[in-house]
Amino acid sequence: MIYAAIMGFGTIGSGVYEVLDRNREQVAAAAGQPVEVKYVLDLRDFPGTAVEDKVIHDFSVIENDPEVKLVVETMGGLNPSYPFVKACLLAGKHVSTSNKALVAAHGTELLAIARKKGVNFQFEASVGGGIPIIRTLYRCMAGDRVSEITGILNGTTNYILTKMDREGWSFGQALKEAQALGYAEQNPEADVEGYDTCRKIAILTALAAGKEVDYREIPTEGITNICAEDLRYADTLGLALKLVGTSRIQGDKVSVRVAPLLMGKENPLYGVNDVYNAILVKGNMLGTSMYYGSGAGKLPTASAVVADMIEEAQNLDHHVPMGWSGEKLALQTEDTAVYRYFLRIAGKFEELHQMVEHYLGDCQIALLEGLDEFAVLTDAMEKSAFEQALARLNEVLAQAGSRTVQIIHGEA
Amino acid sequence: MIYAAIMGFGTIGSGVYEVLDRNREQVAAAAGQPVEVKYVLDLRDFPGTAVEDKVIHDFSVIENDPEVKLVVETMGGLNPSYPFVKACLLAGKHVSTSNKALVAAHGTELLAIARKKGVNFQFEASVGGGIPIIRTLYRCMAGDRVSEITGILNGTTNYILTKMDREGWSFGQALKEAQALGYAEQNPEADVEGYDTCRKIAILTALAAGKEVDYREIPTEGITNICAEDLRYADTLGLALKLVGTSRIQGDKVSVRVAPLLMGKENPLYGVNDVYNAILVKGNMLGTSMYYGSGAGKLPTASAVVADMIEEAQNLDHHVPMGWSGEKLALQTEDTAVYRYFLRIAGKFEELHQMVEHYLGDCQIALLEGLDEFAVLTDAMEKSAFEQALARLNEVLAQAGSRTVQIIHGEA
Repeated sequence: MIYAAIMGFGTIGSGVYEVLDRNREQVAAAAGQPVEVKYVLDLRDFPGTAVEDKVIHDFSVIENDPEVKLVVETMGGLNPSYPFVKACLLAGKHVSTSNKALVAAHGTELLAIARKKGVNFQFEASVGGGIPIIRTLYRCMAGDRVSEITGILNGTTNYILTKMDREGWSFGQALKEAQALGYAEQNPEADVEGYDTCRKIAILTALAAGKEVDYREIPTEGITNICAEDLRYADTLGLALKLVGTSRIQGDKVSVRVAPLLMGKENPLYGVNDVYNAILVKGNMLGTSMYYGSGAGKLPTASAVVADMIEEAQNLDHHVPMGWSGEKLALQTEDTAVYRYFLRIAGKFEELHQMVEHYLGDCQIALLEGLDEFAVLTDAMEKSAFEQALARLNEVLAQAGSRTVQIIHGEA
Repeated sequence: MIYAAIMGFGTIGSGVYEVLDRNREQVAAAAGQPVEVKYVLDLRDFPGTAVEDKVIHDFSVIENDPEVKLVVETMGGLNPSYPFVKACLLAGKHVSTSNKALVAAHGTELLAIARKKGVNFQFEASVGGGIPIIRTLYRCMAGDRVSEITGILNGTTNYILTKMDREGWSFGQALKEAQALGYAEQNPEADVEGYDTCRKIAILTALAAGKEVDYREIPTEGITNICAEDLRYADTLGLALKLVGTSRIQGDKVSVRVAPLLMGKENPLYGVNDVYNAILVKGNMLGTSMYYGSGAGKLPTASAVVADMIEEAQNLDHHVPMGWSGEKLALQTEDTAVYRYFLRIAGKFEELHQMVEHYLGDCQIALLEGLDEFAVLTDAMEKSAFEQALARLNEVLAQAGSRTVQIIHGEA
């Protein structure tokens, strides 16, 4: 018998209890022995429930009980999750967390403590919910050099973009529906501004590069600026629009960004819709692979936490190598990155398109009936070259009484 | 330093050498120490190459060298790979193989020996080449109960179906092109008759259910019977046609089959084309997830072997729980499985469709210009009910001088 404690008995924490309970035999077989929850730490009591007798309100009970080997942190936020997790690791306990904010902010320190104390600090559930991407990176691609990670890492924004595309809804309408269904929070900033995606791509990049990534340095753009017309143009061009986090890793040169991206049918992320997440990984040996599943949800996320607990149970007496060092990764700007660019330009196509193509080169054109504007999709160009061309184009457009209404990156 | 031997220096074996060489640092960091190939066992010599001094022709050199801890089997076939692998495990060495025939035929015995000797017998590369599906099942879904696995597991047939669909080619034309490109062998039977897919779904099912699966008991249908018209009908119905291996696991009730399957856009396998493989897995907690990548190819497959070697190096002194027991899984027939059915019927739509719908219920209809036939897609029905209805329909069709030209399963 191995004893565990769950800190935070909200959606994910109670889900962990449910997975351990419903798949008891399966978990015991994989872990080598039954896993029993001894304590549930929460501010609330849960009278009349199965955990009634396990609820405690004092963290030190967990910290000081040598029988507790596995601790689950599903409180969220940084306080008190950070001091609690740190204390557990220092006390020689294994910790699994679903808390991406904690991992992005303090992962380096917590990993170093785990290494020193010979225990494991794991966080499979912090990125991609039910998609086993963390374990894939450190277990399955251990012999590979990862050159690119591109992920649809936020289910809320993917749901919003899917609805805007399929139903022709505005961003506001789609957000409202997402909130009504419980997919988006009342303050949706973390999702729609890309902050959630930013923390997740920071974690994946740190894992792949083996160095610390400061998520605050990642250029991050959300989807609040996207409108239904953008998606209609994308459809006519045969493209899908997704909010992605991308990192490109070439030796010490690493660039990371979060932004909406237009992609074609050949991209395995093209058909990933609704609240699903998916992550595309390129390795120098493995080539392109893609991992798809539920990005959130009580049981998928809890199942990922339980997979961590099983790995910890299998490695009670030593640290399994994973994570990143304290060395900080210097992020590069994307000047030489190659994209296609989608632009919407106010005014009449007949009057303006020659001017546009003069500066941007040959473009694919898209027109929507009834709008006093048009859209173009450039060929692949380096970011710095595009920015120079755009600056000149904007000048002459202004002289002609026109302007660029929208700019979105497209995959090259 | 940890020493390894590669048995069989063909495409995959030399790929393993290349991955170990090119990603030397990466591998050493993950394995905890450098991995050095000490021997290459092959019938050939490789004069003038980097392995020239490592080539041996006598297996007993590997078997009797206590310094060799990791052995790679990439010879293929069963003889001598089976006796060699068995001898290595009995000698206390870890073995990684890419050989699905070996795992399907002797996996149960080899896993039992590995368990008894406290070593690891691993086979990530035997299914899905560069897709880390084996490790995902035993590591990442360890706490889940898998209820369904459906995989596009053979790149050759997926390429052929893709070409028949996109180019309108016949099966024979597409096969010829696949052979010219080296995707299909001169004797393509193992691929196009579904035998390769059969062995792979047997391995995945045994892993998920924890019991031995006899691949010879799996109903297996290939794609030799599929023609370009089937794919044109599928297009008009908005469906894609894929050769899949499927297992459904409900407690002790497990059914497995290999056959072409029609699927809709909502299925994540819908957009998997060309030589790519993908595997959809449903877990009772994790929900639906999907894993996509190169099903074959020198470096992707070799990379999977190297991931096995790293895991073995991390667990030199003990067996990592995985695999299945010697208990045999009794496969069920699919009588209560629910499918939609696609049928092509010779003759005139106007004269026959009422008769067809009388027996099969309301159907979606598809017509192709210039053909003296039509196609229908039934609603979802139980397999046994369909078979009864079909028998009666065939009788009355025969009386009317008509017949069913094609029957293909579709997802419900």
